[in-house]
Amino acid sequence: MPYSFKQLPPQAKCIRCKGQAEIPLPSHHANFCRNCFFHFFKTAVQRALKKLKVGPKTPIMVAVSGGKDSLATWESLNELGFQTKGLYINLDIEEFSSASRQAIERFANSRNLNWSEYHLKEIFGYSILDIYKRMRGKICSVCGRLKRQFLNRLTIKEGFEIVATGHNLDDEAGRLLGNLIGNRAEYVTKQYPYLPAPNPYIPAKLKPLYRLEKKEILIFCELKDIQPVSINCPLSKGATSHKFKNALEYLEKEMPGIKRHFLFSYLKGKSLPTNESFGICKQCGEPTYADLCSVCNLKNRLEQKDRKSRPKYE
Amino acid sequence: MPYSFKQLPPQAKCIRCKGQAEIPLPSHHANFCRNCFFHFFKTAVQRALKKLKVGPKTPIMVAVSGGKDSLATWESLNELGFQTKGLYINLDIEEFSSASRQAIERFANSRNLNWSEYHLKEIFGYSILDIYKRMRGKICSVCGRLKRQFLNRLTIKEGFEIVATGHNLDDEAGRLLGNLIGNRAEYVTKQYPYLPAPNPYIPAKLKPLYRLEKKEILIFCELKDIQPVSINCPLSKGATSHKFKNALEYLEKEMPGIKRHFLFSYLKGKSLPTNESFGICKQCGEPTYADLCSVCNLKNRLEQKDRKSRPKYE
Repeated sequence: MPYSFKQLPPQAKCIRCKGQAEIPLPSHHANFCRNCFFHFFKTAVQRALKKLKVGPKTPIMVAVSGGKDSLATWESLNELGFQTKGLYINLDIEEFSSASRQAIERFANSRNLNWSEYHLKEIFGYSILDIYKRMRGKICSVCGRLKRQFLNRLTIKEGFEIVATGHNLDDEAGRLLGNLIGNRAEYVTKQYPYLPAPNPYIPAKLKPLYRLEKKEILIFCELKDIQPVSINCPLSKGATSHKFKNALEYLEKEMPGIKRHFLFSYLKGKSLPTNESFGICKQCGEPTYADLCSVCNLKNRLEQKDRKSRPKYE
Repeated sequence: MPYSFKQLPPQAKCIRCKGQAEIPLPSHHANFCRNCFFHFFKTAVQRALKKLKVGPKTPIMVAVSGGKDSLATWESLNELGFQTKGLYINLDIEEFSSASRQAIERFANSRNLNWSEYHLKEIFGYSILDIYKRMRGKICSVCGRLKRQFLNRLTIKEGFEIVATGHNLDDEAGRLLGNLIGNRAEYVTKQYPYLPAPNPYIPAKLKPLYRLEKKEILIFCELKDIQPVSINCPLSKGATSHKFKNALEYLEKEMPGIKRHFLFSYLKGKSLPTNESFGICKQCGEPTYADLCSVCNLKNRLEQKDRKSRPKYE
């Protein structure tokens, strides 16, 4: 998906170096040349990392899906000198997953980077399509919950203490809007782009791109010759999160800058969440805040459905 | 602007009486016949009035602009047996104001209702166009503030203790969204569809239509043969409030019912605001929370501008 940004007139000047500008960023009320755009992008990533006080050369696991956000995250962390490794959970969703895998392979090979692949079917017992067939309605939140849990577990298993995800400003602002419209104050309070490890079984979490908009990441990928997967997950069509992002996109178009102002005003003044006491899942021994972790919870529900649908004479 | 609602198939049943339905209301996941729609509308108004414990026959001043909301408010309060009088502040904005005035006159004459008219120019010294010429940018918030102040003062002057305005669910939800996105917690807390009189100089305020959506009010007007002004204020084009309403309208279309759920979840559990201590404007003696009331404040700014633009040799 080459993203072609709007052509600027020849007299447009870069806001930083005053040279010829190429890249318009209306939400910053600014135009940039290529070099200064890279500087802007890098600074935004560095500001995101600063909060967690991650030193250079720290090993960071990067959750990769083959999409623009995760590949741009991986590229940025490498450029900043971190030791990175990609972590791909293959969901085996037909062509979507094979195209995603190819995008990761292409990116990693061209840059000589390491990555691991795990199939959800192997680590959980059910693939996303298996789950989709057994559950009614939208699968996105279930899929998100599973990926979150397994990213935690696999990061620790692979010997890393930090995992980075590709969530961008649009993702974070959309989630915040959804939580505000749903009046879920507890989620609004908890939403944070960097979370220290609450205990030795859960890695610290980083969202290096939380200060960057989708559009800026598309431009970054185009300029860096990163070729992300160009098809969307066929199961995510009509996801609620897309709708809140669309509503914000409309407001951003009408009032450039409102989206980042909105997100940052809620993050400002928040202090890092404190460690929470946690228990151990009765079933699998992984850390959880309830009796059963969400993975075991879902697995039990799926197995129950399977037992019910089995003919009784078996 | 006759609002023509979507035709329902002949087998569509009214959710209340099971007769033939005529009126689809997707945000209620319901269809209604005419009679049951009127019952639904009346109940929504009664629920709004209940909170302020307004007894029957209470005199209520109705702020009218000639638009669908204020005329539907006036109609509903009359039907419920209140003693009403219309209060129109003529802004003298060219054809818009003359068409508004005509709509009010037509409505009031056909129902034999009393109303008073005041010209902003006469009560304030400047018309909206006078102010528009002197101020840069959007005028909507200034106009709103002036109307609010003069509605208060004129309601008391005319011997009423309650003023009703036509704010509907879309207005209230849009305002709430704007305040949440702007992270203005103090306004979120203060937003309330019924305010008791804080002192003898300010009337109690009612928004009888705050539980009804724009679309429902358009249908009500059409069925009651109310002909509101059919042109929009030429100065309100691009108003920020419209943008937040549009964003919510998009979400409502995608997730019917979300708009009312959003507003009501924030209002739920709120208790009526308590009386606040207030002072007296040093300039005009009207009640205010600051040294100067907002009307005098604006007037001083306008007069200062006039002095500055006057040639010095005068």
